[in-house]
Amino acid sequence: MTKVTAQMSVSLDGYYAGPRSTADPHDMAAWMEGLEAPGFFRVTRWVIDAIAWRERLGFAGGEQSVNSRIVEETFAAAGAYVMGRRMFEGGEIPWGDEPPFRAPVFVVTHRDREVLERQGGTSFTFVTDGIERAVAMAREAAGGKNVAVAGGGTLVRQILAAGLLDELELHIAPVLLGDGMRLLDGGLGLDPREGIELTPVRVVETPEVTHIRYAVGGRAKLELDDRGSGAA
Amino acid sequence: MTKVTAQMSVSLDGYYAGPRSTADPHDMAAWMEGLEAPGFFRVTRWVIDAIAWRERLGFAGGEQSVNSRIVEETFAAAGAYVMGRRMFEGGEIPWGDEPPFRAPVFVVTHRDREVLERQGGTSFTFVTDGIERAVAMAREAAGGKNVAVAGGGTLVRQILAAGLLDELELHIAPVLLGDGMRLLDGGLGLDPREGIELTPVRVVETPEVTHIRYAVGGRAKLELDDRGSGAA
Repeated sequence: MTKVTAQMSVSLDGYYAGPRSTADPHDMAAWMEGLEAPGFFRVTRWVIDAIAWRERLGFAGGEQSVNSRIVEETFAAAGAYVMGRRMFEGGEIPWGDEPPFRAPVFVVTHRDREVLERQGGTSFTFVTDGIERAVAMAREAAGGKNVAVAGGGTLVRQILAAGLLDELELHIAPVLLGDGMRLLDGGLGLDPREGIELTPVRVVETPEVTHIRYAVGGRAKLELDDRGSGAA
Repeated sequence: MTKVTAQMSVSLDGYYAGPRSTADPHDMAAWMEGLEAPGFFRVTRWVIDAIAWRERLGFAGGEQSVNSRIVEETFAAAGAYVMGRRMFEGGEIPWGDEPPFRAPVFVVTHRDREVLERQGGTSFTFVTDGIERAVAMAREAAGGKNVAVAGGGTLVRQILAAGLLDELELHIAPVLLGDGMRLLDGGLGLDPREGIELTPVRVVETPEVTHIRYAVGGRAKLELDDRGSGAA
């Protein structure tokens, strides 16, 4: 059965990149000079080192490792993607003629545009009527495989807040960035006395990154507990 | 060799309690009615359920579990504690005549006060000349065991930022709170192009909470990486 999944590389303090760059997302050189890039490269280092990622991009080298198998498995599980507009614009040039997705990608945007067909099975369809519609289109295109929310963080948060996310996998890089763009930074529309309950379904431990996958449950009231308090 | 360690229970979005209560920390009833408590009880539920915690507090019941063994081990490793003023004031009454620490506790505060001797080996010494001094006093008192930073979050962050912390263990509860008091929320005094590097030294997975212990390394420059970018 098709699940809607998301996975993001984050620092231990929850950032998926440094402070947001104000450069045009298409302008890679300007973005590389800004503050967003150093944090982004730190938390995604385990991906860039993985042979499974490098092969998809046509880059030489890379490590055959547990981390690489997780990259491979993540790509293999996805039959279609949903992506935010800013991530698409940032990736459009570096991903080149044969982007790594090899599946239909639905880009949530306000700007209508013709479908972009790329080599290797990737297409970009621009969806201007909201995240629910983009997820529904991706479900239809996924052929029974999963719909993966490719990012960025804003879209992951929106899909989580809308109750559309079945699984969230965080790849926690062992670093503190202190500032930047945070994946889980409010915007979930929660009442102060409720939380979103999760269930950890898989933890994979490597020196470079800790992978934790959660099944996303529903919103639940936070209970007070008078059986005794205090920190351990 | 004595290490300075800290361990905190946090939600997956990094909160150790709900939004900060403005009640007098001594006024437990007012605190229980505020918004800080529900988040606090959710992230520490695994502790309150543990038999090792309940026994220390003289409460009945509790579960004998991996989580309980982690509570036990955490208490056993600490020869002395450093604690923030607000945490002390919040705990002073509920911890009662025989607080769970059974070791000297050094409370960082601006208000001088006589040493408070409690039963079972716990004493509270009030240190008014800063965190370095409190850590040094605790080291001396620890008898070769570890100095544990008991909390709260502000003190943990200060000790981390000052480069005094050797180990940080997070107990990540599988819940999103959306708002509250965040352990790792800036205040680390990092340059935007540097991070604090960590090394994961132990991961313990349970359905109720994921325990990740890190050795704290030094500050390091964040490197750009032009070998290929984009999210996996």
